[in-house]
Amino acid sequence: MFDEERSAEVVAASFAGTPDPRLRQVMTSLVQHLHAFVKDVELTEEEWGVAIDFLTRTGQLSDEVRQEFILLSDVLGVSMLVETINHRTGGTSTESTVLGPFHMVESPVRDLGADIALDGKGTPCLVSGRVTGPDGEPLPGAAVDVWQTNEDGFYDVQQPGVQPAGNLRGMFTADEQGRFWFRSVVPRWYPIPDDGPVGQLLAATGRHPNRPAHLHFIVAAPGHRPVTTHVFVADSPYLDSDAVFGVKESLVRPVHEVDDPARAAEVGLPNPFCTLTFDLSLLRAGQEPPATNPGGRSR
Amino acid sequence: MFDEERSAEVVAASFAGTPDPRLRQVMTSLVQHLHAFVKDVELTEEEWGVAIDFLTRTGQLSDEVRQEFILLSDVLGVSMLVETINHRTGGTSTESTVLGPFHMVESPVRDLGADIALDGKGTPCLVSGRVTGPDGEPLPGAAVDVWQTNEDGFYDVQQPGVQPAGNLRGMFTADEQGRFWFRSVVPRWYPIPDDGPVGQLLAATGRHPNRPAHLHFIVAAPGHRPVTTHVFVADSPYLDSDAVFGVKESLVRPVHEVDDPARAAEVGLPNPFCTLTFDLSLLRAGQEPPATNPGGRSR
Repeated sequence: MFDEERSAEVVAASFAGTPDPRLRQVMTSLVQHLHAFVKDVELTEEEWGVAIDFLTRTGQLSDEVRQEFILLSDVLGVSMLVETINHRTGGTSTESTVLGPFHMVESPVRDLGADIALDGKGTPCLVSGRVTGPDGEPLPGAAVDVWQTNEDGFYDVQQPGVQPAGNLRGMFTADEQGRFWFRSVVPRWYPIPDDGPVGQLLAATGRHPNRPAHLHFIVAAPGHRPVTTHVFVADSPYLDSDAVFGVKESLVRPVHEVDDPARAAEVGLPNPFCTLTFDLSLLRAGQEPPATNPGGRSR
Repeated sequence: MFDEERSAEVVAASFAGTPDPRLRQVMTSLVQHLHAFVKDVELTEEEWGVAIDFLTRTGQLSDEVRQEFILLSDVLGVSMLVETINHRTGGTSTESTVLGPFHMVESPVRDLGADIALDGKGTPCLVSGRVTGPDGEPLPGAAVDVWQTNEDGFYDVQQPGVQPAGNLRGMFTADEQGRFWFRSVVPRWYPIPDDGPVGQLLAATGRHPNRPAHLHFIVAAPGHRPVTTHVFVADSPYLDSDAVFGVKESLVRPVHEVDDPARAAEVGLPNPFCTLTFDLSLLRAGQEPPATNPGGRSR
């Protein structure tokens, strides 16, 4: 029977008959950590009621275009932790970061060099890079899927009827040397949706809802492990306080201003223009990422 | 910036500016335990997605008459843990247990001896007891609020139009010796609502949804700390596997069959009939419950 001291043990025992061993493991661990939390803070009944109400409203705000529970997972660093655990690179390839909730439509297929800034707003920028394998060999034909917000800090799917569909999205195919390039605008920082329970949590805890300027990538090549990541703009506001903890040092790149009329004409941008370069390296499929947990936890 | 090893530390630091110290303490602890759980099981991205979907559906099923998040808290033993932490008695008074979600209407005021089984179903039972203070002194005029399911395992509010309103509920006032008594039926076990996400969790983990037979009490007296509790029927099915972990040894009482025509006539029940006796003891208001955490955790 239940008692305070043995509470986690008693409840975990109720899951002992779970047929699936993995589900049994997950539920047992969840119960242990959840009870440890409640005991640690000695949660009051009033606080418990606030938590029930918060979780209920978080579920009720969610629909096909708004997922408030993912946002909650994001601001608690859980999304980033799950992403990192499942995509350890040990520094041998491009690090991953959160997918985010705005990769909900297929990016339009575009030719190398195309301009993805269909609304003509923002500071013109040439984005380019090279996709290689683990030994630096180029990966010709790699698929490079990119998306970013517009100058006002919104993705196209957040502003149907305001932004052209497919604005600031593109699916590119790298050339024979694994290179890609396209025209866009310099990404800018923006706030995550903060008019719901997660926004209330951020406000109550003195946190801002902003993400530093970034451009999303999913890069894939036959025979290699795809990577979901961002390139972050060096010196962007909020680089050290991303609301969803997505920033990794290895993913930050500078934006340079180029004053070169000939080069501007060549790439089809007004002079001067900006450049952002991001090379990506993929592990081979089946290539084991480093097995060592960097935290050195006993397993 | 975020890294796997320091993930909890990095995210907890984001809450360091929380103006309210208690909220800061709760969020810091929550982050530590949540990240420890994710690392402990190395949650996969697919499992994370299942969890997001489960929590979303749990919120969306909830409304004014169905609270699926409370049910989730119940089957994870969290409701019972919070209840126990906040109502420690140290064995010096009647122990508390979960309120449950069905005390949503006021119980009808009834005279001592009244029959609360308005639908005439079930095995007649005389329920009686005595309310005393911590030194055994009677508490005249104590308020005794009781509610239970009918013979089919439903509370009146779950079957509007089927059960008479107020069926198997009553608010009684103890006599000058702190005694109360009323007519009812022997409580029976019943399943918690299991047609939602929580029911799916129970099914996937091989758990049944049943609660052992019990009768709810909230007992209050001026100058004393009220107690929210149940009396459980000895030998009921599921006494050792209550789906919500509400059973405490000290709250179990036998149901006796009485064959005594004179007594039956006196209390207004057919002969033979059953009896269930439950005496309750309240702490004085302001009387400190034992401060020691029985788990002996360092605080």
